[in-house]
Amino acid sequence: MGASRFDVIGIGNAIVDILVHADDDLLVSEGMTKGAMTLIDADEAQRIYEKIDAAIECSGGSAANTIAGLASLGGAGAFVGKVHDDQLGKVFGHDMRAIGVYFDTPPTESGPPTATSMVLVTPDAQRTMQTFLGACVNLGPDDIDLELIAGAQVTYLEGYLWDPPAAKEAFLKAADGAHQAGRKVSLSLSDPFCVDRHRDDFLDLAEHHVDILFANEEEIMSLYQVENFDDALQAVRGHCDIAALTRGEKGSVIVSGDEVHVVDAEAVGALVDTTGAGDAYAAGFLFGLTSGRDLFTSARIGGICAAECISHMGARPDVSFKDLVEEKLRK
Amino acid sequence: MGASRFDVIGIGNAIVDILVHADDDLLVSEGMTKGAMTLIDADEAQRIYEKIDAAIECSGGSAANTIAGLASLGGAGAFVGKVHDDQLGKVFGHDMRAIGVYFDTPPTESGPPTATSMVLVTPDAQRTMQTFLGACVNLGPDDIDLELIAGAQVTYLEGYLWDPPAAKEAFLKAADGAHQAGRKVSLSLSDPFCVDRHRDDFLDLAEHHVDILFANEEEIMSLYQVENFDDALQAVRGHCDIAALTRGEKGSVIVSGDEVHVVDAEAVGALVDTTGAGDAYAAGFLFGLTSGRDLFTSARIGGICAAECISHMGARPDVSFKDLVEEKLRK
Repeated sequence: MGASRFDVIGIGNAIVDILVHADDDLLVSEGMTKGAMTLIDADEAQRIYEKIDAAIECSGGSAANTIAGLASLGGAGAFVGKVHDDQLGKVFGHDMRAIGVYFDTPPTESGPPTATSMVLVTPDAQRTMQTFLGACVNLGPDDIDLELIAGAQVTYLEGYLWDPPAAKEAFLKAADGAHQAGRKVSLSLSDPFCVDRHRDDFLDLAEHHVDILFANEEEIMSLYQVENFDDALQAVRGHCDIAALTRGEKGSVIVSGDEVHVVDAEAVGALVDTTGAGDAYAAGFLFGLTSGRDLFTSARIGGICAAECISHMGARPDVSFKDLVEEKLRK
Repeated sequence: MGASRFDVIGIGNAIVDILVHADDDLLVSEGMTKGAMTLIDADEAQRIYEKIDAAIECSGGSAANTIAGLASLGGAGAFVGKVHDDQLGKVFGHDMRAIGVYFDTPPTESGPPTATSMVLVTPDAQRTMQTFLGACVNLGPDDIDLELIAGAQVTYLEGYLWDPPAAKEAFLKAADGAHQAGRKVSLSLSDPFCVDRHRDDFLDLAEHHVDILFANEEEIMSLYQVENFDDALQAVRGHCDIAALTRGEKGSVIVSGDEVHVVDAEAVGALVDTTGAGDAYAAGFLFGLTSGRDLFTSARIGGICAAECISHMGARPDVSFKDLVEEKLRK
């Protein structure tokens, strides 16, 4: 295994978020599943857009948020994801490159526009996402450059990639390529409903393809179809080298062979918007690991990033994660 | 003068802001005029975009921000401005209509894209704008519906409209139409450099066409080419029915014939981003006037809205102006 060009290469849906405050009434009247990411088509996206309040737009996407967080920590990141050659696609590309992330997946010239996700933030700071995958359905194995993959310590994949069919092939090509190069493969389960859609595949991935698994409490319980967190913890124990399980205000639990760490959550001032909390945690944890920190410290860095992320609207860092983590770890 | 359908109709450049934190170093190395709005072409916009950090996008435009603020106060607002039929144009239109603003200016189908303004916010919370006018150059007199104008208590015009040549004609058509219908015409001077570009025209407007003038300290001193605020105050006194002069942390001064009010600024918690402070002030003041408040109270409402605006990134209201003003005026 040679020197690495990147700490982490992320592969995921390239999405521009449409971030908006919403009342629970709207979620109820539209029959939305609160807290979940629901896939919708272009017509439905337009219909819902007409019902939401004035919004702001910012680059999003789960794995893309993680790589943005890694870059904010000072890590070397790359991203693979598909946008269309349109205004929002240019926004997405700009926002990745501007923070030093390597991103050169060619945009589509025809077909659907760049993906958008309406992120409805309710007064309890919970987020409910309505996602139109747009150009993301055109990500395929040809977009995976095995040389790039081989140059990254970790290849990080979002579970949401299992939704657009061709992306699944890209996912497996990348995972195999990473292992053949002696690198690690990491997966985030993304969403309990996403786990429901793809449980058998995800179980197979966790057992046979993934070294570092990220999941929150609901996702890992959904994966193993168990009723309590500890059962899920015991189930995942033998399946991956490392499982990083997040539990919101209860902190996180890291399992790696015989090693188990129970890490408290960081204090949060005002809870504003939970969008991207898991993405930010993965950024911190992977940055910790790839920069040689132990599991406990890596989990703490993840927690610090997640706490920052939920203190403001939007999923991308609002301050330098690097400065923040250095300050918090000194204490 | 019949019943009014709208409290205020705003006419201005329809712009999507690209909001970004920036260091003073970038402003210096690019030779930007700090605090000003500078017009740039498409190539220059692209060149600068590649130099700025990851950003967020939100609807902007000076008069559009004012009408958005008016709507947030519970006022009935309409807006006239030109976008292109592209993604950002749709964003702009959505954000106006979503807050209840009447907006039906037809978008262009050819020519330049929707206007964007890179709003660079430095650590001192000052904003420096680099604006590509895009589709705004295609706003013309045909876009002015005199029936709409006649139905609004106040027609509000931004000085920036004097930059795109055809918009100037639209501006004058709207102002004449408003007066013929027995309505009021209001103008914001927008920017001291904009005043420099169009001083003779603005002097003529202030004297002959405008009933309610908004200007900050630098703008009104630039208009009359005087060295201190009081000289400007004396100069403007006979020119308009009402002049509302804003002075940042020194509050505002309202002049109307013999009446003069000196109104303290509202307390601001954290000063984050001054973008849109003047727009929000105008929203509050015009809402006050059109809802029958006296000049002092109208100025206070303006100050409350401006203080809220500068406490967060972006020019549009972050909370309900209506709730905020009701709470503050009760005290």
